[in-house]
Amino acid sequence: MRRYNLAIVGIGMVGREMVKVLRERNFPVGELRIFARHPRQVEIEGEVYQVRTIEEKSFEDIDIALFAGTEGEKGAAVAFSRQAIESGAVVIDNGADFRLRPDVPLVVPEVNPQAIKEHKGLIANPNCTTIQMVVALAEIYKRFALKQIVLVSFQSASGAGRGLLEQMQQEIRRISKSEHLSLIPQKRDNLRTQLSFNIIAQIGSFKEEDYTTEEWKTVRETQKIFADRSIKITSTCVRVPVFISHSEAIYFQTRKKAGLEEIKQALQASKGVVFRENPEDFPFPLEAQGRDEVFVGRVRRDIFNENSFWLWSVADNLRKGAALNAIQIAELVCATLN
Amino acid sequence: MRRYNLAIVGIGMVGREMVKVLRERNFPVGELRIFARHPRQVEIEGEVYQVRTIEEKSFEDIDIALFAGTEGEKGAAVAFSRQAIESGAVVIDNGADFRLRPDVPLVVPEVNPQAIKEHKGLIANPNCTTIQMVVALAEIYKRFALKQIVLVSFQSASGAGRGLLEQMQQEIRRISKSEHLSLIPQKRDNLRTQLSFNIIAQIGSFKEEDYTTEEWKTVRETQKIFADRSIKITSTCVRVPVFISHSEAIYFQTRKKAGLEEIKQALQASKGVVFRENPEDFPFPLEAQGRDEVFVGRVRRDIFNENSFWLWSVADNLRKGAALNAIQIAELVCATLN
Repeated sequence: MRRYNLAIVGIGMVGREMVKVLRERNFPVGELRIFARHPRQVEIEGEVYQVRTIEEKSFEDIDIALFAGTEGEKGAAVAFSRQAIESGAVVIDNGADFRLRPDVPLVVPEVNPQAIKEHKGLIANPNCTTIQMVVALAEIYKRFALKQIVLVSFQSASGAGRGLLEQMQQEIRRISKSEHLSLIPQKRDNLRTQLSFNIIAQIGSFKEEDYTTEEWKTVRETQKIFADRSIKITSTCVRVPVFISHSEAIYFQTRKKAGLEEIKQALQASKGVVFRENPEDFPFPLEAQGRDEVFVGRVRRDIFNENSFWLWSVADNLRKGAALNAIQIAELVCATLN
Repeated sequence: MRRYNLAIVGIGMVGREMVKVLRERNFPVGELRIFARHPRQVEIEGEVYQVRTIEEKSFEDIDIALFAGTEGEKGAAVAFSRQAIESGAVVIDNGADFRLRPDVPLVVPEVNPQAIKEHKGLIANPNCTTIQMVVALAEIYKRFALKQIVLVSFQSASGAGRGLLEQMQQEIRRISKSEHLSLIPQKRDNLRTQLSFNIIAQIGSFKEEDYTTEEWKTVRETQKIFADRSIKITSTCVRVPVFISHSEAIYFQTRKKAGLEEIKQALQASKGVVFRENPEDFPFPLEAQGRDEVFVGRVRRDIFNENSFWLWSVADNLRKGAALNAIQIAELVCATLN
């Protein structure tokens, strides 16, 4: 059996999760090279890995380079993905820099696996919030098409990286020592940045139309993955005091006539989805942590509008929302390399 | 100046907040009698009050009886509101038992103060989630009418009473002692009831169409307060790990043509609303705690649908969502008693 040489660039929360997922799935790894800004050793679930900085020949003989890091100028993908491609590697980028380029496939393997065929060396992994939504809606889209999506997200701290997780841990330790937990002993100016016991209605920065970058991702990426610009998508993306796993309240209207039972049948048949039909079995973040599936519950019809429904989706944002989806793309790429 | 004799029935979180609000507003209280199931003394912000059980002549000479307790058979309103009315008191009930009765006004003073005129001895205080939404939408409704509302709520633990607050405090103390805060050392069966670092997509119990009791309240109460059954309302109500103050992502479509600037002007002119026009000044629960106003921010248009907008509303669920609104109703009642 053929084995593949992999590079992981960036070894923060997503990079570490990629290493775990590769092991769990018995991915046929030949050599595994890990790159980051600062050379060091990292331990991941008992095994020690050497982390190197990227040099001239770093991607030589690499089949697939997984970029796990931050988007934007700080990120390695802008600086080094070209080098990896020119060395002959297929790049899978978890960041947002290339997602909307026409020559870059944006892939969720359960939804649009065929899109990888058109890659020119780089395949983009969508945003966590988008992945979780399109997995939940894919089979419904296939059967009935979608006219409108109204999304409200409940996104965990880990989506902002280790820094916010650590901030929240410090907040909890400090607050748990105070006598009255509900009275937060802080100046008002500091409250806005406190996540514990708070709700922050901003993820990313504000852009056109006062949508945040995160909200624009849910619009543009979803239209690209479904290859359908006619879907009217709008969202409010919100940070909540949860460590891992995003939750989403998704209100949607199908284009074709659909009844509640047909929507439930589509969810039963959905790939990568655990559908909880009993409303009392609604999914929640603590149970999704560490799991591969997108959990869906609370499926209901809008009692006033035809073909309009709710669903509640919960998934581990570091796994299906990032690392796992990227590794699944890598598995599709391997099949084309054989 | 005339003074009014008041009774407060139930001295849980809402009842205590009523006592505080009466004091803050210099409500012209004559005698104040506090009733509950168990006689005792309670201290509220340094002052000690005698709590008695309800007896035959408890409501004699009472002008206004504020029922602060739980709805349903457990609640005092079902058992004792008739007695209070027959003693000549006007009852203001915070619970849900009477809200939808045709002969009971359901009142938010900023929205439908005129409705109190039709009372037959009992006026109902709406649900916290509904109050906060209708205050935010009232002026918009007045100017443009509403065709549709899609609500997703982020409701704090205090909405479920002291028990859930105490549970969350215990969870935090326990979890803060563990080494890895993000790994919750619990059995999976217990996770569903953990609120800290979790999101619970159920408030109340499941009823018709798999909507929860809380979701039905947002539909039926809002239609009643606006006296408009043509508004298509649907919601997903969610419990979040916050102590006090609810947040709401509200997506709405006006019936008449409206532009973003007109919506913003309506919000500027809204009673009881602090409108934050700059998107970076979005409101959050920690700042709303202890405040009387409903804070509104993140006002945006839906880029694909005409006359469709988002707003983000935050308010103290114990104050405007319960105690304060009831006292404001009491103030309206006093004006009619003069």
